[in-house]
Amino acid sequence: MREVYQEQLDMLAEELASMSTMVGTAMEHATKALLEADLSLAEQVIDQDMQVDEARAQCEERAFGLLALQAPVAGDLRAVISTIHVAEDLERMGDLALHVAKTTRRRHPNPVLPEDVKPYFSRMGESAEKLSSRLNEVMRTQDVQGAKALEGEDDEMDDLHRHLFSVMMSPEWEHGVSAAVDVTLLGRFYERFADHAVSVARRIVYIVTGAMPTS
Amino acid sequence: MREVYQEQLDMLAEELASMSTMVGTAMEHATKALLEADLSLAEQVIDQDMQVDEARAQCEERAFGLLALQAPVAGDLRAVISTIHVAEDLERMGDLALHVAKTTRRRHPNPVLPEDVKPYFSRMGESAEKLSSRLNEVMRTQDVQGAKALEGEDDEMDDLHRHLFSVMMSPEWEHGVSAAVDVTLLGRFYERFADHAVSVARRIVYIVTGAMPTS
Repeated sequence: MREVYQEQLDMLAEELASMSTMVGTAMEHATKALLEADLSLAEQVIDQDMQVDEARAQCEERAFGLLALQAPVAGDLRAVISTIHVAEDLERMGDLALHVAKTTRRRHPNPVLPEDVKPYFSRMGESAEKLSSRLNEVMRTQDVQGAKALEGEDDEMDDLHRHLFSVMMSPEWEHGVSAAVDVTLLGRFYERFADHAVSVARRIVYIVTGAMPTS
Repeated sequence: MREVYQEQLDMLAEELASMSTMVGTAMEHATKALLEADLSLAEQVIDQDMQVDEARAQCEERAFGLLALQAPVAGDLRAVISTIHVAEDLERMGDLALHVAKTTRRRHPNPVLPEDVKPYFSRMGESAEKLSSRLNEVMRTQDVQGAKALEGEDDEMDDLHRHLFSVMMSPEWEHGVSAAVDVTLLGRFYERFADHAVSVARRIVYIVTGAMPTS
């Protein structure tokens, strides 16, 4: 019984890890499409979001199966429920990449971003990729220290996000309100992507150790 | 066994219903504070968010207890898991009210909103209140038709949100970029509040009927 449970939980962890790769790639491509006003890449991200949704549904099914057949209690029960939350966070990260791609499509053939904010989005994109690949790593290795360290990486995104706002608020901003509205929402999408990544990392700590990290 | 299960599930539904009242009130007060630049009301919303977080934790505990002690399967299992998702959505709605209140506090003593967008926020606030009180009603009565009708109410918020954007994008907008950034984010908070309300409504349909509504 216990062996079957552990095997199924490991398989679930594997599926969640590949979901983290999917959403990391989605945000990488969405960022590239945004920076280069690349419509076909944006559409690829939009088309592939369905795969993330399916992966999430599959993870949830596996978790339901585990709960129904193994009826885990205590820490095991909480671990399985946490995987359901992780799948939900990862799906949301995919949605945020989708929003970035849709913004690119909406403004095409015009680029969404004024030249002077491109470096911020390039770095926010890198930060998002780094978070996703670190998530993937900690999920595969169940590396608690690595998961805890992920919270610091979120600070980097928050800094970039704050700087982006000061650029828009400065008197030198000459791209008008319409560009500012797009940049505001896009900045929010990257920030939320990072928030969800941190939430996943916290749950991994929980799944592995049985205790939520205090923040 | 079955009786205890049903009793506990009803209690959980009751707790979720009162959470919906809490977040509805939070958004109502946050909107009032925003429209009137009322610092003390904004701070009250900020202080009370912790109660929403506690209510969510309590709902989750009860759901865990149900799973551990009753080990429900099939539809019952899915119903209990859905309550965990509902609690999460409601907590997020509380967070969005909190963000509105924090924006008011950040700009105080200046009002955040230019006069000409106030009517939009007033109506988005009303729409948010209506959604929350309808949620409360459908949770108490398990009214599937009412829950399904909630999706239409979300359209109202989307319309208001779209109009708000066209106001900012119009050449008559004379409040500059800084106000537009605040208005953009605030608009997003109300829109997301409505999205989560719809997600809750869909899950209630599921909990009561055992089938997700097709959208």
